[in-house]
Amino acid sequence: MSKYTVAVVGATGAVGREMIKVLEQRKFPVKTLVPLASNKKQRRTVRFKGKAIPVKPAEDKAFNGVDLSLFAGGGSASAEFAWEAVRRGSLVIDNSSTFRMRADVPLIVPEVNARHLRRHKGLIANPNCSTIQLCVALKPIYDKLGVERVVVSTYQSVSGIGLQGIEELETQIKDFVGKRKIKTSAFPAQILFNVVPQIDVFMKSGYTREEEKMIFETQKIFSDPALAISATCVRVPVFGAHSESVNVQTKRAFSIPTILKLYESQPGLKLMDQPAPAPGDEFRVAYPLAVDVQGTDDVFVGRIRKDPSQANGLDMWVVADNLRKGAALNAVQIAEFLM
Amino acid sequence: MSKYTVAVVGATGAVGREMIKVLEQRKFPVKTLVPLASNKKQRRTVRFKGKAIPVKPAEDKAFNGVDLSLFAGGGSASAEFAWEAVRRGSLVIDNSSTFRMRADVPLIVPEVNARHLRRHKGLIANPNCSTIQLCVALKPIYDKLGVERVVVSTYQSVSGIGLQGIEELETQIKDFVGKRKIKTSAFPAQILFNVVPQIDVFMKSGYTREEEKMIFETQKIFSDPALAISATCVRVPVFGAHSESVNVQTKRAFSIPTILKLYESQPGLKLMDQPAPAPGDEFRVAYPLAVDVQGTDDVFVGRIRKDPSQANGLDMWVVADNLRKGAALNAVQIAEFLM
Repeated sequence: MSKYTVAVVGATGAVGREMIKVLEQRKFPVKTLVPLASNKKQRRTVRFKGKAIPVKPAEDKAFNGVDLSLFAGGGSASAEFAWEAVRRGSLVIDNSSTFRMRADVPLIVPEVNARHLRRHKGLIANPNCSTIQLCVALKPIYDKLGVERVVVSTYQSVSGIGLQGIEELETQIKDFVGKRKIKTSAFPAQILFNVVPQIDVFMKSGYTREEEKMIFETQKIFSDPALAISATCVRVPVFGAHSESVNVQTKRAFSIPTILKLYESQPGLKLMDQPAPAPGDEFRVAYPLAVDVQGTDDVFVGRIRKDPSQANGLDMWVVADNLRKGAALNAVQIAEFLM
Repeated sequence: MSKYTVAVVGATGAVGREMIKVLEQRKFPVKTLVPLASNKKQRRTVRFKGKAIPVKPAEDKAFNGVDLSLFAGGGSASAEFAWEAVRRGSLVIDNSSTFRMRADVPLIVPEVNARHLRRHKGLIANPNCSTIQLCVALKPIYDKLGVERVVVSTYQSVSGIGLQGIEELETQIKDFVGKRKIKTSAFPAQILFNVVPQIDVFMKSGYTREEEKMIFETQKIFSDPALAISATCVRVPVFGAHSESVNVQTKRAFSIPTILKLYESQPGLKLMDQPAPAPGDEFRVAYPLAVDVQGTDDVFVGRIRKDPSQANGLDMWVVADNLRKGAALNAVQIAEFLM
């Protein structure tokens, strides 16, 4: 098997770190790891296969001889260096939203639309975290029954904005316990003991950018611009893993056993659905929880039930680690598929 | 104005305490306050108008001479004493779910269906916390535009199960900070840094009892058994105030200014909706947050926007203090209406 020189841009951030961990865990054939970071003051080392590897500044020439570049340095790093890396001969998988909606950039969840990888110009976009898990959960239903409409409300963890999100929640806990005033900087409002219905800025539609990403990226991934979706994206005081309450109207009728069967054989998806129908049986209950899913690779689905309020209505609860399947793992899976 | 002897059953619980506070804050004409608690070991005092009043055991004869009984002692206390209190001449307002769906018991949100108070047998039921705020938010839309369908996902605070919910979150914080194992007893799973898609037990439908309450109670309050609702009820690590992500399809077309106007004049509802449509303007943003709404009386509505994925689609975010408007305040408002 060939081995590759792999650059990780934003190597010291939450997603970059996770990418390096995933490359090692999945035994990706790395000949040389090139960790890059745009902030020169942050120059330090990252650990990979037991060695400390120095982080180098992200600059054009850093991409010479690089076979694969995983970008997790935010929109500005991607805008500055992604196409330059392609020009210097690298395949680029970009975790930022910069190029996701461009017609000549495939937006990929491998289990859902790997076929879109047939044509590309050297740059592949990784979808938004909350979008990826929704698409994996919708995929078998979409293929088998058709999807008429989706209403999704999210419960998104603080790591969605990177390390500063985790640090802000940790600081707010310390200030709460120390009876000090709780200060807010990374999020639009206090996140400890609160839920905040704003992720990213507001758009003209009244939706936030995060909500529009969920809608438009999902439509692009399914190549279905008419797919009807409404999204409400909410930040919650959880460290890792996003949860989603998903209401779906399918095009064709179904039974719950059919749905469960579809989900048992969907790659990348783990069914965790053990309701206890009789009172007194509540200890047999199982459904995915953010604290359990953090650190795992699959998209977990539970709380599957008929929504009798509409024809072909279905409710479910979808949880995935937003740094792994929602970002780093999905990017590496795209690379595995292509290389 | 006449003055009344008022009993509060469950006077030492989270809702009972809040009821006594609300009676004082709203200057309800109380001649004598009779605090009752079923657990005899917990005999202590409650504070009312600067005085410590001894808590007496809940028993049949405790209701002699009582004009108004507010029940917040849970289902078993209501089952045991509510009709007995009526028999002894008291008007009863019951916060438990025991009698809510009985045809001869009105289920009341004063701003929504006070007309249902015209006929009753001495016992009025107070709806579930998550139901009350949903009904207040739907009311002006229901009357003006008709409601075809509602999909709601909740973000419910730990005080929804009373003081033990608050204590469990506090204990879990201490154990987290002290690096001890986090123990769970009041909730089905760890609630700190987690979101739990189960409130109350599972029913045959696959919905939880809390979700069925939201559906069936809302239908009863609007006298509309055909009102189509799907609910997903989720516990979040918030101390007080429930938040709800609500997607509505109305029967007739509307414009957003019409909705805002309806909401500006709805009693008991406060509009807090200041999106910043242009990037860079994000500091003008306003929407209700659980930490701000806790301790207030109104149902707060924000994030109002068209859902363009369906005809007559509307999204909004609804927050209210679950111990006040969701329980104690609503009960006292029913009493004010009747007495």
